Amino acid sequence: MIIVTRPHIADHDLDRIREYIESRGLRTHVSQGDERTVVGCVGDVQSLDPDAIRALAGVADVLRVSKPYRLAALEFVARPTLVSIGDARGTTFGGSEIVVAAGPCSVESREMILESAHAVSAAGARMLRGGAFKPRSSPYAFQGLGAEGLELLAEARAATGLPVVSEVLDPRQVELVSEYVDMLQIGARNMQNFALLAEVGRVRRPVLLKRGLSATIAELLLAAEHIMAQGNSQVVLCERGIRTFETATRNTLDVAAVAVLKRETHLPVIVDPSHAAGRTDLVAPLAFAAIAAGADGLIIETHPNPAMARSDGDQSLTLPSFTSLMKLLAPFAAAAGRTIASPTPENAHVVAGVAS
Amino acid sequence: MIIVTRPHIADHDLDRIREYIESRGLRTHVSQGDERTVVGCVGDVQSLDPDAIRALAGVADVLRVSKPYRLAALEFVARPTLVSIGDARGTTFGGSEIVVAAGPCSVESREMILESAHAVSAAGARMLRGGAFKPRSSPYAFQGLGAEGLELLAEARAATGLPVVSEVLDPRQVELVSEYVDMLQIGARNMQNFALLAEVGRVRRPVLLKRGLSATIAELLLAAEHIMAQGNSQVVLCERGIRTFETATRNTLDVAAVAVLKRETHLPVIVDPSHAAGRTDLVAPLAFAAIAAGADGLIIETHPNPAMARSDGDQSLTLPSFTSLMKLLAPFAAAAGRTIASPTPENAHVVAGVAS
Amino acid sequence: MIIVTRPHIADHDLDRIREYIESRGLRTHVSQGDERTVVGCVGDVQSLDPDAIRALAGVADVLRVSKPYRLAALEFVARPTLVSIGDARGTTFGGSEIVVAAGPCSVESREMILESAHAVSAAGARMLRGGAFKPRSSPYAFQGLGAEGLELLAEARAATGLPVVSEVLDPRQVELVSEYVDMLQIGARNMQNFALLAEVGRVRRPVLLKRGLSATIAELLLAAEHIMAQGNSQVVLCERGIRTFETATRNTLDVAAVAVLKRETHLPVIVDPSHAAGRTDLVAPLAFAAIAAGADGLIIETHPNPAMARSDGDQSLTLPSFTSLMKLLAPFAAAAGRTIASPTPENAHVVAGVAS
Amino acid sequence: MIIVTRPHIADHDLDRIREYIESRGLRTHVSQGDERTVVGCVGDVQSLDPDAIRALAGVADVLRVSKPYRLAALEFVARPTLVSIGDARGTTFGGSEIVVAAGPCSVESREMILESAHAVSAAGARMLRGGAFKPRSSPYAFQGLGAEGLELLAEARAATGLPVVSEVLDPRQVELVSEYVDMLQIGARNMQNFALLAEVGRVRRPVLLKRGLSATIAELLLAAEHIMAQGNSQVVLCERGIRTFETATRNTLDVAAVAVLKRETHLPVIVDPSHAAGRTDLVAPLAFAAIAAGADGLIIETHPNPAMARSDGDQSLTLPSFTSLMKLLAPFAAAAGRTIASPTPENAHVVAGVAS
Repeated sequence: MIIVTRPHIADHDLDRIREYIESRGLRTHVSQGDERTVVGCVGDVQSLDPDAIRALAGVADVLRVSKPYRLAALEFVARPTLVSIGDARGTTFGGSEIVVAAGPCSVESREMILESAHAVSAAGARMLRGGAFKPRSSPYAFQGLGAEGLELLAEARAATGLPVVSEVLDPRQVELVSEYVDMLQIGARNMQNFALLAEVGRVRRPVLLKRGLSATIAELLLAAEHIMAQGNSQVVLCERGIRTFETATRNTLDVAAVAVLKRETHLPVIVDPSHAAGRTDLVAPLAFAAIAAGADGLIIETHPNPAMARSDGDQSLTLPSFTSLMKLLAPFAAAAGRTIASPTPENAHVVAGVAS
Repeated sequence: MIIVTRPHIADHDLDRIREYIESRGLRTHVSQGDERTVVGCVGDVQSLDPDAIRALAGVADVLRVSKPYRLAALEFVARPTLVSIGDARGTTFGGSEIVVAAGPCSVESREMILESAHAVSAAGARMLRGGAFKPRSSPYAFQGLGAEGLELLAEARAATGLPVVSEVLDPRQVELVSEYVDMLQIGARNMQNFALLAEVGRVRRPVLLKRGLSATIAELLLAAEHIMAQGNSQVVLCERGIRTFETATRNTLDVAAVAVLKRETHLPVIVDPSHAAGRTDLVAPLAFAAIAAGADGLIIETHPNPAMARSDGDQSLTLPSFTSLMKLLAPFAAAAGRTIASPTPENAHVVAGVAS
Repeated sequence: MIIVTRPHIADHDLDRIREYIESRGLRTHVSQGDERTVVGCVGDVQSLDPDAIRALAGVADVLRVSKPYRLAALEFVARPTLVSIGDARGTTFGGSEIVVAAGPCSVESREMILESAHAVSAAGARMLRGGAFKPRSSPYAFQGLGAEGLELLAEARAATGLPVVSEVLDPRQVELVSEYVDMLQIGARNMQNFALLAEVGRVRRPVLLKRGLSATIAELLLAAEHIMAQGNSQVVLCERGIRTFETATRNTLDVAAVAVLKRETHLPVIVDPSHAAGRTDLVAPLAFAAIAAGADGLIIETHPNPAMARSDGDQSLTLPSFTSLMKLLAPFAAAAGRTIASPTPENAHVVAGVAS
Repeated sequence: MIIVTRPHIADHDLDRIREYIESRGLRTHVSQGDERTVVGCVGDVQSLDPDAIRALAGVADVLRVSKPYRLAALEFVARPTLVSIGDARGTTFGGSEIVVAAGPCSVESREMILESAHAVSAAGARMLRGGAFKPRSSPYAFQGLGAEGLELLAEARAATGLPVVSEVLDPRQVELVSEYVDMLQIGARNMQNFALLAEVGRVRRPVLLKRGLSATIAELLLAAEHIMAQGNSQVVLCERGIRTFETATRNTLDVAAVAVLKRETHLPVIVDPSHAAGRTDLVAPLAFAAIAAGADGLIIETHPNPAMARSDGDQSLTLPSFTSLMKLLAPFAAAAGRTIASPTPENAHVVAGVAS
């Protein structure tokens, strides 16, 4: 149930509304907009009487939410959620700037992650991606450098000022990974790993939640709800392709999911064209399409030497290709009424400034 | 097998190459580029000796095509195929202009098709769509006005100068429909109706071939091959969404298919965002994404009064919405290095000129 | 709308009911059970007043059918439909005997079809399958022997007494194919070829309707409805695997579809394990599963020499393998409370008797 | 790499083979058949020289395994794996008896789990299922009784002698759950939760591994490999339906997966018809089909009062329906050359004996 208040409600009126709800055993979640304030009620809403609530001072309307997700629902908050990373550049998902995260599938060595970080930063990326713990279908494949990989990511951040996103696979790793990274990634295979979702819901780190290979959009939102229900509402959703019968691409990018999500939720939505395509020559057109459909950002795999990558080499752009791609993205961002950082000396300057 | 000639090959050398191939029981298909000429060989290529062909005067290279489609393959022709409709405006698929076809799902009455044609023409559409024969899952649903619908389409064309595309369902209708329309549409359900494909392959009308609901990209190209093998190479491919588990949209727009097709074939590729989405609020973002991914055109459902439509009302734009959409498409077309007609007095003028 | 009569309704009462309905512009379809008679009303049922009909003599109840199919709906007829082929053996789909059709994917020569027919007949098959007109993804693949193939099928029938089922691809072929075969097959790719469905609906030949690769069960029933609405209710449905992400099998046999269909329709349902599996080693377990789930029959591909088959060799059983399979099927048929013909001298005798 | 020994190899020869492999940094896994012994080599097999190994005493052959899974591969062991639960009845998956596990989706109360256990035991079930920790798409749905549910399952086991299978969701729960249950279940959503797979791979409890909703058969085997690579080879695989476009059933039972798995792996394979169907009227036909296709067992949801179930009520059989189903399964088991426990006084006796 969602309570919409009258414009500029007085604090004591808002407090009385919350007390009323909480005294009936539910939790409240307040979202402050410029004018409008929204009070979400989580718990057994059947026990509430909408008419009684409407009678409270300062209440404009009471809405019953029939959707299975509430905290993630668009109606639930007064304005779109901005997920701020808190770095020197002020990287924020969900604002007017399209945020691009880039970097290797997995951190393989000190040299490669530093080279990657410098290059993607100069190209305009606002975040460095890199896997330390890798989920692999086969137990015999490279599983990542683990804690050592986290150290290397921290070093790359120190050198470039780029905030870092990395995947967490195990509830027991959440604390450790949170110490090193700026954003925790939940991979597609773990989208319904509820123990892990609950754990990242308890830390104060933004979460990048990837859609499962065969998860519906509603299930993705419910997975976000699992995180948010634990108190962490800094969630960014990521469409990365779904599994279909088509084999020309590794997955089928459901570009409409971006547009549907923007109509269903206040959370930022980004796209991973690399995993969707599974081949480098399609990364650019899918990135263009994602921005055109309204995505708030992109996460793109790069590698200094894709042919030698220990995972996902087929879909990793070279660093020069990534720099070229960033230039090509700008007109699409502009067409969508957004901005995007471009490869410029300015970017190099910021990097230098942060790194010095 | 494909024979690539040396630049500016002499006619008599080209003739000797063709005679050589045809004397061995195969057919040849010559594609002339600005410099390079390509000779495709169709038939039992196993019987040809590549080395013997390489020894012929004017031959630069001989390529074995391992793909199951040949006439549709990118390697097969010297330059992208332009499909020209032959109308006063010079509408052409595959050139620098993005071509938009628009109109109702089915022709319902004289008034509605004329109103639609005038409005979409003024908004910048280059082609009028409208079903006279409708494939319907249920035998009890409205099946279209049939021949009367064709007459009304012809009247709308006369009134606006807009060329017309309409679906053909039955090999026995191909001749009749061809008399009325400028482009024959093969619907998704008939993508592998080989009798129908062969029949449209025998007429001299451009064909709009829609991808089947669960057809792979390779199967779509083979369906085009069925048409082309009969002598009609004026084929435009259309991605219109595939069937997946996701139910938030009617189908899942496989936007990557556009990019894959542009790398596999020389044929123009357009997108139908209306059928992919199945809901009007997603038509615009999917249209933007299609153009960003490289589509050569769009086909969009409109209706003067969607709530009263006899089919597909949920996904039909109102005429004012379509006009607005056309304006919004322009910056995406520009970002993709393309042009698109906009709703302008100029367009109205063209219409007036043609109609008078 | 469906009208259920009182037990043993008098003929003149039944006539008055029909006249009432037909006078309002609808068609009626009467199904006579042992006790109960059911009158189906097809057309604009909105114009009928159920209460007025309930007031007619002999009417027990009036049901509104909310499902999109009516003639195919289980509620629509008084008892399961038996589709009788009319051969000397009395082959009937939908009765207590499980009917097995077997034979090659395509008729390749006189020798092979005769050898196949004799062998599958002796093994207990009740019908010979064999393609004369073949739908092929590629226009360059073998398209079947055409009319010559039909002649050979007729010769095989004469030699063995086995009735024949063969695919029809084109509405213009229906008359020709009907002259030669006992049952017309609509292939998966043509399940929504409505022109073809209408044409087979107009002839007096049983129809084997295969489920499309991505057709829902409801769409399969609507396709049957297209045939039945033209007056031909002798339709047998065939589950043959659907297209999914799994690649270990050619298609995914939706064995639950058999059980669902038996709860939705009165039409017989058979299974094609050969196309579902796409590999011979899985034909037997899928055939067992189909019978266990309630299938009324099977259609199985065999070839005297699968390695030399011109189509679908990978999934064709050798003739001895088919004979072995027939023996293995018997206990599963018995477990399902059904019978099945076994490879016995008796079968050979029947064959001899018919052939002499 | 797999080393096949000569018949009746001497122990010291076998020891030398293992020493040779292990001295090169790989692990060995020995599987003893009646005659043949197989030594699997796990690790960096590229470093081994097959010819050197062939030269060792007692070696008959050396096979390179190209499949991505090894420990789970059929070629890897000398005979099918039997997974024995260790209860008084000697319940064993993979032997001649088809093992049926039954019980509620979630343990809801002492009364309902005891009633369920007694009833399914008398009906012939060999194992009690019941969820204590439930994975739910929504964070607001009932998540199970947790530790209390485990206590109640233990009490039901004590009362009936039925061993117990229950799901584990979190690596941190594995130790606790292992203390209470006889078999650990990994649910479909966690099939690629590699942290959890590793953890259950380290305990000495049989594992029931369910196929993910969109997991390929190869991925299911790789998930088993993750468990086995940690030393636990007591893994039973479970097909429970995959996600497709069809909505008539909750999932699409991929019955062919059973047959494919029996050809790919030595591990037992069971089927969950309840989750596949999602509706009770289809549980019986799917159970029949599973057995016909070669399944080693079934896991079926029951509830004393399905209408009041806190989860999955739509697909839960009543206890009398389950008893009826067990009787109907027997002839299909016999047709498949297997046995199955039936509802008999004898079963009741066993129960009484164990419980007293």
